Amino acid sequence: MKDYSFQNVTKRRINNSSTSGHFSRGLCAIFTRKMKWLFFILMIILVAITNILLLSKPQRMHPSTTVFFPIRRRLSSLTQQQAISICNQTFYHLHSAAFNNDRLIIVITPTYKRFTRIPDLIRLSQTLMHISKLAWLVIEDGKQISDAVYRILQRSNLTYCYFAVERNRNFPARGWTARQFALRFVLQYFANFSNRAVVYFADDDNTYDVRIFDKFIRKVEKIGVWAVGTVANLLLEAPSVNEEGKVNGWLTKYAPGRSWAIDMAGFAINLELLLQAQGASFVTCKRKVSPEPCLLSTLNITKENSQAFGYDENPRDILVWHTKSNHHIHRKYFKMNYEYLIDV
Amino acid sequence: MKDYSFQNVTKRRINNSSTSGHFSRGLCAIFTRKMKWLFFILMIILVAITNILLLSKPQRMHPSTTVFFPIRRRLSSLTQQQAISICNQTFYHLHSAAFNNDRLIIVITPTYKRFTRIPDLIRLSQTLMHISKLAWLVIEDGKQISDAVYRILQRSNLTYCYFAVERNRNFPARGWTARQFALRFVLQYFANFSNRAVVYFADDDNTYDVRIFDKFIRKVEKIGVWAVGTVANLLLEAPSVNEEGKVNGWLTKYAPGRSWAIDMAGFAINLELLLQAQGASFVTCKRKVSPEPCLLSTLNITKENSQAFGYDENPRDILVWHTKSNHHIHRKYFKMNYEYLIDV
Repeated sequence: MKDYSFQNVTKRRINNSSTSGHFSRGLCAIFTRKMKWLFFILMIILVAITNILLLSKPQRMHPSTTVFFPIRRRLSSLTQQQAISICNQTFYHLHSAAFNNDRLIIVITPTYKRFTRIPDLIRLSQTLMHISKLAWLVIEDGKQISDAVYRILQRSNLTYCYFAVERNRNFPARGWTARQFALRFVLQYFANFSNRAVVYFADDDNTYDVRIFDKFIRKVEKIGVWAVGTVANLLLEAPSVNEEGKVNGWLTKYAPGRSWAIDMAGFAINLELLLQAQGASFVTCKRKVSPEPCLLSTLNITKENSQAFGYDENPRDILVWHTKSNHHIHRKYFKMNYEYLIDV
Repeated sequence: MKDYSFQNVTKRRINNSSTSGHFSRGLCAIFTRKMKWLFFILMIILVAITNILLLSKPQRMHPSTTVFFPIRRRLSSLTQQQAISICNQTFYHLHSAAFNNDRLIIVITPTYKRFTRIPDLIRLSQTLMHISKLAWLVIEDGKQISDAVYRILQRSNLTYCYFAVERNRNFPARGWTARQFALRFVLQYFANFSNRAVVYFADDDNTYDVRIFDKFIRKVEKIGVWAVGTVANLLLEAPSVNEEGKVNGWLTKYAPGRSWAIDMAGFAINLELLLQAQGASFVTCKRKVSPEPCLLSTLNITKENSQAFGYDENPRDILVWHTKSNHHIHRKYFKMNYEYLIDV
């Protein structure tokens, strides 16, 4: 039997900057003194219902519904977050000096237990295995590390860190906690890498053409943006680029007026920009609808200052797809694993 | 603009051995002279309806319904089949002498136009790029070769042949024609490879752990069988192996009594066995329900003489998954490609 025990388990405590909250005074002002109590009772009921719904909901990464949180104060509960981490030796040996000319790509992948998770992660790991100078941060949505996932990481020979982070119940279940945790970790652990690293958020069920890493991601000076296939009910979403090569909008049907109408797979950020922004975070935005504009709005940069990639190629290839694996396993056969390693 | 024109297009005419058919005399015998005409009229109507249904159906590889063909004579129309083929130079330089100790793996992949085809093929190509001594036969379900698919093959640096074969309307749309064509091609083109090659049928939307190629497929002496994940409404299907290591049945809920109750991804065949069987074919079985037992029943071998792989490992890993890509593209946005290369 191969050795796949967790000798290297270390515990880290990551302190996130607290986000101070307050009631929306504008909203309060429309209520008279007499309606104040009614307003408070309604708010308490609303928060209670939201929490019950969140607790009863399975932890999914891409639900079709999103939750709106009226009270920003609750976000501050992310401050004290505990995580289990397993990193391989090559991860601890990463030094910024080695990435003077060729930036390190830091890939952040939230993951969670589901029937198609193992094949999804195997495929992604086999794609990343073609890329040099890459560090993979995989963040488990849960208290414990998964043996099956850990074995995939070990076999890959990639430079990796695997974390288990319990989800903050105040965030949507679609990897918000995992990405926020990874962002904080990167800002602390890789602080001295500055311009020598680029951060890319890569979900485990997407499809990545190997060309995206060296042609697009590694060349990102501040923010790089590009087309993403089969996303948001469309064949693709892409940045709209004017004749001078400047991004002037977004080719999408889903709220194209947003400053960053872009999918998580459609951009990468130079670490230097993240460090300069200081407040870089997924959780400071008021409405927890889309994580992408939520983060990008904290970076003090406009879309006009982003780099568009791939729009001037012929043919115009798409190098990343928002794919999703399907399965048709019948509920009554869920337990039938014949002693094979199934991660459910 | 990069050169991706089809200079190497050559036309081949592949002659498949004809399968002689006849009306089932046993069935006719039960009809009296008076009912003969009624029987003929009914048969003509049935065949007409079947053809109309087939022609109106989109060409899908995995529909949930299958079609039963009452008249075997129609199968002989596969005899004269024309195909366009594009192979790279390394394909033409394959020689059996180079594979004395380490067999060539011939991977046969039927494919067809759909929204998720390009990411699926990119992922599969990036998996195969990890494997040495492999030849990839990709068979397009159609009259024409797809530019986008051809470019994936070119970029991969794999040894490949890409065929366009028009589907025989008398077969189900799930890659039967493509696999039958590829099988005939292999039996002719690789005839002198004999025991120095193994044939594996790998669909483009499945997930392959790179270990399957060298640990399982390349070691197949006659037929090798193994577990397949997320298939037939189950977490997995696998061969059932007794204490002596012999296959004595199939761990599945879908017709486990069949001699070969196994998915296409769950077996590989040594070329020598295919050549010896002579009648090796996908189309000689009466009922066109499952292609797997249809082929395997023509090989003059029993399940007890197959090699089971992976059942004696600890842990018991699954190395191939019957995955399927999903998409949620809205019909009204089908045409919205913003000049990016979309293969639909």
